[in-house]
Amino acid sequence: MKKTAISDEWSVIEEGFDPDRHEASESLFSIGNGHMGQRANFEERYSGSSLQGSYIAGVYYPDKTRVGWWKNGYPEYFAKVLNSPSWIGIDVEVNGQTLDLAACPTENFRRVLDMKRGVLRRSFIATMADGAKIQVETQRFVSMARPEVGVVRYRLTALSNIRLKMVAGLDGHVSNRDSNYNEYFWNILETRAAPREAFLLAQTRKLDFQVGLAMRLCFEANQQAVEPGCIDTSEFAANAFELDLPRHASATVTKFGGVVTSQDHDRAELKAKACEVAASAEVSGFDMLLGEHEAKWAEIWSHSDIVIEGDAVAQQGIRFNIFHLNQTYTGDDERLNIGPKGFTGEKYGGSTYWDTEAFCIPFYLCTAPSRVTRNLLIYRYKHLGKAIENAAKLGFSAGAALYPMVTMNGEECHNEWEITFEEIHRNGAIAFAIHNYVRHTGDEAYLAEYGLEVLIGIARFWAQRATFSADKGKYVILGVTGPNEYENNVNNNWYTNTIACWCLDYAREALKKVERSSPGHFAEIVARTRLDNASETAQWTAISAGMYFPFDAQRGLILQQDGYLDKEPVTAADIDPAQRPINQHWSWDRILRSPFIKQADVLMGLYLFEEHYDGAFLQRHFDYYEARTVHESSLSPCIHTVLAARLGMIEKAYELYLRTARLDLDDYNHEVDEGLHITSMAGSWLAIVEGFGGKRVRDGKLCLSPQIPNGWRKYAFRLLFKDQPVEVTVTENDVTVLVKGPKPIVVAIWGEDHGLVPGKPLTIARKLAPDMLSVIRHDRAPATGEGAGHR
Amino acid sequence: MKKTAISDEWSVIEEGFDPDRHEASESLFSIGNGHMGQRANFEERYSGSSLQGSYIAGVYYPDKTRVGWWKNGYPEYFAKVLNSPSWIGIDVEVNGQTLDLAACPTENFRRVLDMKRGVLRRSFIATMADGAKIQVETQRFVSMARPEVGVVRYRLTALSNIRLKMVAGLDGHVSNRDSNYNEYFWNILETRAAPREAFLLAQTRKLDFQVGLAMRLCFEANQQAVEPGCIDTSEFAANAFELDLPRHASATVTKFGGVVTSQDHDRAELKAKACEVAASAEVSGFDMLLGEHEAKWAEIWSHSDIVIEGDAVAQQGIRFNIFHLNQTYTGDDERLNIGPKGFTGEKYGGSTYWDTEAFCIPFYLCTAPSRVTRNLLIYRYKHLGKAIENAAKLGFSAGAALYPMVTMNGEECHNEWEITFEEIHRNGAIAFAIHNYVRHTGDEAYLAEYGLEVLIGIARFWAQRATFSADKGKYVILGVTGPNEYENNVNNNWYTNTIACWCLDYAREALKKVERSSPGHFAEIVARTRLDNASETAQWTAISAGMYFPFDAQRGLILQQDGYLDKEPVTAADIDPAQRPINQHWSWDRILRSPFIKQADVLMGLYLFEEHYDGAFLQRHFDYYEARTVHESSLSPCIHTVLAARLGMIEKAYELYLRTARLDLDDYNHEVDEGLHITSMAGSWLAIVEGFGGKRVRDGKLCLSPQIPNGWRKYAFRLLFKDQPVEVTVTENDVTVLVKGPKPIVVAIWGEDHGLVPGKPLTIARKLAPDMLSVIRHDRAPATGEGAGHR
Repeated sequence: MKKTAISDEWSVIEEGFDPDRHEASESLFSIGNGHMGQRANFEERYSGSSLQGSYIAGVYYPDKTRVGWWKNGYPEYFAKVLNSPSWIGIDVEVNGQTLDLAACPTENFRRVLDMKRGVLRRSFIATMADGAKIQVETQRFVSMARPEVGVVRYRLTALSNIRLKMVAGLDGHVSNRDSNYNEYFWNILETRAAPREAFLLAQTRKLDFQVGLAMRLCFEANQQAVEPGCIDTSEFAANAFELDLPRHASATVTKFGGVVTSQDHDRAELKAKACEVAASAEVSGFDMLLGEHEAKWAEIWSHSDIVIEGDAVAQQGIRFNIFHLNQTYTGDDERLNIGPKGFTGEKYGGSTYWDTEAFCIPFYLCTAPSRVTRNLLIYRYKHLGKAIENAAKLGFSAGAALYPMVTMNGEECHNEWEITFEEIHRNGAIAFAIHNYVRHTGDEAYLAEYGLEVLIGIARFWAQRATFSADKGKYVILGVTGPNEYENNVNNNWYTNTIACWCLDYAREALKKVERSSPGHFAEIVARTRLDNASETAQWTAISAGMYFPFDAQRGLILQQDGYLDKEPVTAADIDPAQRPINQHWSWDRILRSPFIKQADVLMGLYLFEEHYDGAFLQRHFDYYEARTVHESSLSPCIHTVLAARLGMIEKAYELYLRTARLDLDDYNHEVDEGLHITSMAGSWLAIVEGFGGKRVRDGKLCLSPQIPNGWRKYAFRLLFKDQPVEVTVTENDVTVLVKGPKPIVVAIWGEDHGLVPGKPLTIARKLAPDMLSVIRHDRAPATGEGAGHR
Repeated sequence: MKKTAISDEWSVIEEGFDPDRHEASESLFSIGNGHMGQRANFEERYSGSSLQGSYIAGVYYPDKTRVGWWKNGYPEYFAKVLNSPSWIGIDVEVNGQTLDLAACPTENFRRVLDMKRGVLRRSFIATMADGAKIQVETQRFVSMARPEVGVVRYRLTALSNIRLKMVAGLDGHVSNRDSNYNEYFWNILETRAAPREAFLLAQTRKLDFQVGLAMRLCFEANQQAVEPGCIDTSEFAANAFELDLPRHASATVTKFGGVVTSQDHDRAELKAKACEVAASAEVSGFDMLLGEHEAKWAEIWSHSDIVIEGDAVAQQGIRFNIFHLNQTYTGDDERLNIGPKGFTGEKYGGSTYWDTEAFCIPFYLCTAPSRVTRNLLIYRYKHLGKAIENAAKLGFSAGAALYPMVTMNGEECHNEWEITFEEIHRNGAIAFAIHNYVRHTGDEAYLAEYGLEVLIGIARFWAQRATFSADKGKYVILGVTGPNEYENNVNNNWYTNTIACWCLDYAREALKKVERSSPGHFAEIVARTRLDNASETAQWTAISAGMYFPFDAQRGLILQQDGYLDKEPVTAADIDPAQRPINQHWSWDRILRSPFIKQADVLMGLYLFEEHYDGAFLQRHFDYYEARTVHESSLSPCIHTVLAARLGMIEKAYELYLRTARLDLDDYNHEVDEGLHITSMAGSWLAIVEGFGGKRVRDGKLCLSPQIPNGWRKYAFRLLFKDQPVEVTVTENDVTVLVKGPKPIVVAIWGEDHGLVPGKPLTIARKLAPDMLSVIRHDRAPATGEGAGHR
């Protein structure tokens, strides 16, 4: 990926065309606007290897589950994000020869993703087989201002006299690379082509999602009037323009696409609606559309940008992450969520994982209005019924809720037993996100309106899932997979036991709060959930207080799970580099019995609950577990970055930061061709803001303990706290905090409270080697137990 | 299955036709002769639900693996036993109407499997749509005397004047019900039909197994000469006989089938060979073939029968088991093995499992000449190279061997990670079978010739697979699945740790023996395996001596694995009967975290090594673990039977015996339609001989401690010990032992040695309530450790 990684602060740039890297570039240069997204597939035909991807948010296919050995409880289907009919195609023929960059040599190939404006540009000179040369310049964007609109401008200049044919169309003959039974997922119901416009109506073969695609075309060519031919087959609707183009003359096709779905419109009106969207876009014209779109991006950057001075590589990395997160999810539609690959690939089905709550929500909480996070929470609230059904399938009862590991509509659709049935800590992330939202926004009302019911369902699950071990005289949680998926079916995963107790405690706390603040809601919820408040909460208390946690007293070490110390005493440094990543070289059993950790597990728990541990305790655990972590999950290095920074290990933190922020740009794991790691991009943001910036919320107060990596002259981030914009600028010498909101607030900086007046920046000289340990308050006993220091 | 279960001591009888039970009956009435087998599919067409099954030993298909989520190390294919071209079909038309028992009402339907003679008979009267009635009587067998010959005699009597058409053919249009990608597995290369004979040549689409089928036909009908029409299509070769048959007249087709394969003959000669086999069968004629076949069965029964007087249900059960075992495997071909369903169904691929070594070998050791078991052992010896490759795929090196969980040709072909990679105790069964063979036959030379190399490969595997736990100061074995497959990826499964240590010790012992007895072989093996005798065996000693075993000192209880005591303190009696079998009602995680045990696990180890434990110890463990065992593996009740008998719990033993012996006849698990549990049938034999008979081999001596279940007047079994036939007859009052071999031997009966002279029966009065605990010698310290009493 060297060519792409030109260090530009606002752009990703590829110079020279490398067919072997094409699929990777198709991922990196993807565009999206929350409603739809598009991999950087070429407009013209390409006979080389390419992963075609046109995705529409919320449109999926319940592909029949494929499994060698069925286990009771497996879901019937796995939800696939669909490669949808495509609106971008413009086939080009020069002197009867197809323009195909797999066959035609190119010069000056350059692809630029302008992240500031959200525009993909491409330019190149191609030589045809007969020696004819053409120059091509393209621009493409999907409008942030009009989510149903996508625009392509394709300008071709003849470098010799040529006969040119351009076919611009809507293509319904599309398939997913990842289809369990090699099926096509779409029926094309209607196609229609007229001069300078076309329409296509498609329907998914299951679930009857319908998508209407329309286009309007502008064709300009050397002041010639060219009347298009219409092409209208069962799966393709297009216009063909054919003309002689003299040397140095240009032809430009501008394609205004409209993409509407039955999720937003009546099926009967999809045709009219799509055509109207495309027509109205054409009326506005390319320049106006681009202007609106750029203005939206300017607004997005105004509250989510991070500026880094003195380190272009780090700067490009974080902007790339923030850019793709905003392309993927805008928070306007509570039915939508954030797939691990967003609109950049098929893998992971485009479905919802715990990534959303554990990683994305902390990002959106700070960079987007609170309604965005609220919509993400309501998404799960609406799935509560399905989560209760899901738990019932696994033998739980009485309103216990187990949220799915992977879902589109609330139903579980993953089928590895060790994940689907056992990676139950996901329930904890969903509860913790409610807490995080409430403490960050101050929106206590959310608990009464939505949050409490979810918390009750989750607490009930944990209460039933824990087993009382007569042998230990403690509650245990048997047979789980923790965040570290390189361990399966273990007993007493410390993280899981910890988050379970936290859920039980927080549910009780929330019940009390709502009982006080909203007695009406409270009564309603108790009735609806048939909660036996006294006896159920007493049981929750008993379990939380009586939970067993694996701990080695001699080493003062939390154990990831029962038996962890029996493993071979080696660290990740002992692995032959040729054997990494181990998941591509080792059989599963070898990975499982090794001590190697895929992603933050104990450290994930310490990250969430750090305020209950002192520095020496955290340092000991960081040293022990970081040494054994291979970071083969994209969700791992960011958490380690935050902890390393917390411990003042700034160089380690920086190394881990680059790994998370440039994971895709530098293709650490040799898999960027499959799509980008969208959800882990939120972790890159956390790495800077919570890591280097030391941002926390404690006692309802914003806290900062900034540090700065070596070589950075300055960095600045913005965040929304209780809906007030706060700007933080950190240099080697000081930190400046500016509140842009309407009200004064108190911010704790390096452990000291400072009153901040809107519009008046406050600069405080940097504490050298800050004692990070003292600046974070031990504000209460561990939520999960007796405060014994280790749990 | 009530109708089938008519209590006949030598037959299985079904009266009245029940289409809903047809597939179950097709399994129960299967026939086979080691070379080939045939489900009890009807000769004539049947439009109802039927599992067609014509199987040929060793002919399989490497069906591409189907799996939802690939894990490194999974094999590329799963070997499927093939439903092969069929030689049994005889279509019947009466007055132009097809005889089809799914459509035609029947009277006097009766199906009899004559286990004494190995013949399947069927008779019925059918009424056609036009009211015409016919009576049909069929006989079918696959010759034990000529393994490539199968015979069908189909006699039809008109009960009114009819026009009859009979089409007898060879059918290549066959498929497997269980095909991962719905493919056909066969190419039909050639078909040919001539009057009264036909031929068909088929080839598997992968691996190029070729099968030649030939038939000769005799047609007799009311003294009419009927010239057949020949039918020869791309997949079917047949003769059609058509004639008028007056009331009470009969027509009889006798079909002499020849089935030959490229495993036994040159491909170029398959046609000639098949035709020759069929022709020669015809020359011999039906009666002579049947006579030879019955004589073979008489011989088989003479050394494998068990006679039970006073309990027809028990008698039928054990004969059914012995019959099917002998149909499945004859021991003549060392390339063959025993699939869990033999020739009675497709499930489990017809492949080899540890069932062979753990269950079938003890049966064949006693009931068949020693070459039979020797061939089964050599089968694994020949796969040693593949076992070393298999281990290498999982990261092991230097000649460590891991035998596959499921195999046809030595390659692993199962793909559930928790089984394939983790159910490694199978290696122990393979080593133990060598020990069992040597102690039973006295054939010490086997060790030098074949056994030692296998033992070295297995010992090396365990030495690498164990981990030294610095925390425990002991060796541990992490991440395994024990015999109880309702636990996955556990640490320190007691059975696995025990058998691992036993393997390490036995390999050392075998090395010493061979060094002494065959120095030439020894040097050769050391060179070939590059064994560093001193250092490797020192390591084996260290691991075996330093192994950790999960044990609860307070309860004096071996624990199935680490953490077993943390489970819910419930027993199988606490399970709602409507929820059983739990594997059909509970999700996998629920099963895993429950205390319920699929099959003997700790008790399997105590069964194998009982001589190292006293009675109180065994009783405590039987009580504890039997209460938690749900016996949802067919391999479970037999082991519990032996232990229960050992502990004098004769009623419990009898209950468990019926469960194992009549598992299929009474269809305990509602799955007999898929095929019979062939390998577990060997367990039924063990239940009687080792359970009630108390047969053991200790210090090279045959030991007996017989008991008799209530209600049995008498039972008698035969066994071969060091190739000498021994007949044991037990009544309520005494036991009579008769040695039929050439030499006198000493047999320990109820703990006392008795010299037995060939041909002279010795009768000893029964010891009342024998103290089983004292009669079995504690002949040496536990093979697996320090003799601490629990291991």
